[in-house]
Amino acid sequence: MATMTVKMSREEPAVSYASRYSLPAEPKENDTKSNLCSGPVILLSHGDPTGFKPFWRSVGDKCKVTIDSCDFMSYLTDTGTVCWFLEKELEEAIRQLHRTVGNAVTDDRHILVGTGSTQLYHAALYALTSPGGPEPVNVVSAVPYYSSYPEETNFLCSALYKWAGDAYTFDKEGPYIELVTMPNNPDGQVRGPTVNRNDGKLIHDLAYYWPQYTPITAQADYDIMLFTFSKSMGHAGSRIGWAVVKDKDVAIKMTKYIELNSIGVSRESQHRAAKILGAVSDSSQCIGANFFEYGKSLMAERWTKIREVISRSRLFSLPKYMEEYCQFSGEDTEPHPAFAWLKCNNDIEDLEIFLRRYKIMGRGGSLFGSDPKHVRVSMLGDEETFNLFLERLSSIQDTITNSNGNGIKFDELERKQIR
Amino acid sequence: MATMTVKMSREEPAVSYASRYSLPAEPKENDTKSNLCSGPVILLSHGDPTGFKPFWRSVGDKCKVTIDSCDFMSYLTDTGTVCWFLEKELEEAIRQLHRTVGNAVTDDRHILVGTGSTQLYHAALYALTSPGGPEPVNVVSAVPYYSSYPEETNFLCSALYKWAGDAYTFDKEGPYIELVTMPNNPDGQVRGPTVNRNDGKLIHDLAYYWPQYTPITAQADYDIMLFTFSKSMGHAGSRIGWAVVKDKDVAIKMTKYIELNSIGVSRESQHRAAKILGAVSDSSQCIGANFFEYGKSLMAERWTKIREVISRSRLFSLPKYMEEYCQFSGEDTEPHPAFAWLKCNNDIEDLEIFLRRYKIMGRGGSLFGSDPKHVRVSMLGDEETFNLFLERLSSIQDTITNSNGNGIKFDELERKQIR
Repeated sequence: MATMTVKMSREEPAVSYASRYSLPAEPKENDTKSNLCSGPVILLSHGDPTGFKPFWRSVGDKCKVTIDSCDFMSYLTDTGTVCWFLEKELEEAIRQLHRTVGNAVTDDRHILVGTGSTQLYHAALYALTSPGGPEPVNVVSAVPYYSSYPEETNFLCSALYKWAGDAYTFDKEGPYIELVTMPNNPDGQVRGPTVNRNDGKLIHDLAYYWPQYTPITAQADYDIMLFTFSKSMGHAGSRIGWAVVKDKDVAIKMTKYIELNSIGVSRESQHRAAKILGAVSDSSQCIGANFFEYGKSLMAERWTKIREVISRSRLFSLPKYMEEYCQFSGEDTEPHPAFAWLKCNNDIEDLEIFLRRYKIMGRGGSLFGSDPKHVRVSMLGDEETFNLFLERLSSIQDTITNSNGNGIKFDELERKQIR
Repeated sequence: MATMTVKMSREEPAVSYASRYSLPAEPKENDTKSNLCSGPVILLSHGDPTGFKPFWRSVGDKCKVTIDSCDFMSYLTDTGTVCWFLEKELEEAIRQLHRTVGNAVTDDRHILVGTGSTQLYHAALYALTSPGGPEPVNVVSAVPYYSSYPEETNFLCSALYKWAGDAYTFDKEGPYIELVTMPNNPDGQVRGPTVNRNDGKLIHDLAYYWPQYTPITAQADYDIMLFTFSKSMGHAGSRIGWAVVKDKDVAIKMTKYIELNSIGVSRESQHRAAKILGAVSDSSQCIGANFFEYGKSLMAERWTKIREVISRSRLFSLPKYMEEYCQFSGEDTEPHPAFAWLKCNNDIEDLEIFLRRYKIMGRGGSLFGSDPKHVRVSMLGDEETFNLFLERLSSIQDTITNSNGNGIKFDELERKQIR
């Protein structure tokens, strides 16, 4: 089969302050040099979990919160724990949720709250390092790693820690920190730590270790485990994450980070998260079983659909996942990750740039330490966007396949518009 | 007059991860070595603005917010401005509030939201520096400066910036950043920048530039101005701060900091802050005039009371402030700062430690770059705590004055218990 080579330079500068969350400007009309599609921009570059919104809309008043003018005025909560700004009701809801789902050990563990799990990632780096070392502690993660880790680790040029890339190829001596994302973002694989040396410390990012994404095979029990309200329940705008931490001194230092960074975490968001997590754990309300069932069905349905579209040509492929027994649902379950780690089997060198010309905004493989033939696309968005994405992906496949079959050159292809 | 010298070592280690927000443990009974008072601990070491709570309780349902299960699920807001996570309603309420109060220019300025103004301080440091410089940019502030600045600036050991202490004595060459807190925390004085060189950049912390604390003498119009919901309205637990920024590139980089630090700011808190700030600006509701009037009366009354207590002996003194015309209230007004910058005129070397033995927890002068004969005590707490503080301060004055008059030695003094 003839293949088509498309070489393009990256459109972003090496150091960019542009936000990956901003919607790109609509290209000008007939600007076929920059886009091959007249339809709307499809933003799949970040995991905005709005796909769960219909469920929460259906819940009605059960998780509604009302906040009076004089509520939550103090910095302080009455938790009495290491994390002085944690709402007691949130702590209890978190512990109860993990007991209900069975995805993490929380007994005799410290619970900390953060402004999203991102703030807790920074807190963990601070807690696991100390000033005065000969050089910054190396921070590694196995490729493909979460694309934000390198920039989040390095952007303040800290002397405490620095990004050192792929854990598979890491061979420097001295202390290190390894980030283990399980299941992995972007590719949904379940992996353990890679370096496995005595002088290493681990941070487990378990943002996606929930029944809607992956079978719950065991209670996770690691030194530092990070979770987020965003990916567990779908409430990204609340910016609530939590950490489950074994060691008290680490918990104290992580708390200190958040104190110095933002003097605590929104109490309104904590209150609301407590209400929603509490409802999901409360079997009498049936919200929990319903939510995870809804989430799992939604993800399964989307994965079935995208695999069906992809299967129609050999242009793209997706990872395959093993079915495993899920202790939460009590049945064998296939993973349905929050992201599709799309690969092109063609000579297209940079899939992100290629798709961008069709106004599909994914996140390119090189940002994950992987090759640019991969793109991560979110499976969590709203239904309309997801269906439009499948439609456009299908059109691209048809066009490319026909073009190759008919010997159409790339400049001719540019004149073919996809909606 | 005979004076008493009390030398004590600081009780905290040089590097401490202990939180200044945690309530200290109650001393053991009869532990006269560590305390000279049997009453409860009085926590005045941080500016928890619960003194405004009675006002907000009186407002009733006018500023109540209700949040449905499916609200604020997305990371994204529809603001369309540089700060992609800012709620449009909050931006409008902030601009309107500054127009109503007349304390800052916001036309043609960028509004950014942060998790408290603390996160925006970090964002500003990041925005005003660049990687690759020969050494970190020096960050200075005139003594007495806000006690958290040094640790907040240095704790991540950034190569971008480092704390360089007192602006008055700063004489290093090269670029620098000066923090101007106006009116000043801890001492309530109104000051401009100190270094005044061409290679300097300024961050104005205007947390206390509100009519309840100080006369509004002009619309502030600086490059970067930081404000906070905590000190303006009294809602510290919401962790909402905002920045008013002139330069677009600085605003973009500050936004980028918050994206990398916490991927945005609680939308629940933003929604609630918008409701409350909006109500204060809405003249038809009369909340605004009432709130600032209430706040000003509260602060004025407390300052009258504390000055009256202090005046009974020569042991302590407080700064004096000039009356100025307040453009908001339309009358000559004396400042009533959020903190009392208490000085002992005695030979007591460390006033923080001295007061701690009477279970009054203030923040010692050396943390503000000043001398340890000063302590900053909050004037913003609840009424009961404030009155208990005055009562105990009065007892201390009586005891010390009588002791000196009677030639009682310090170990005898230790046996005298104050309630």
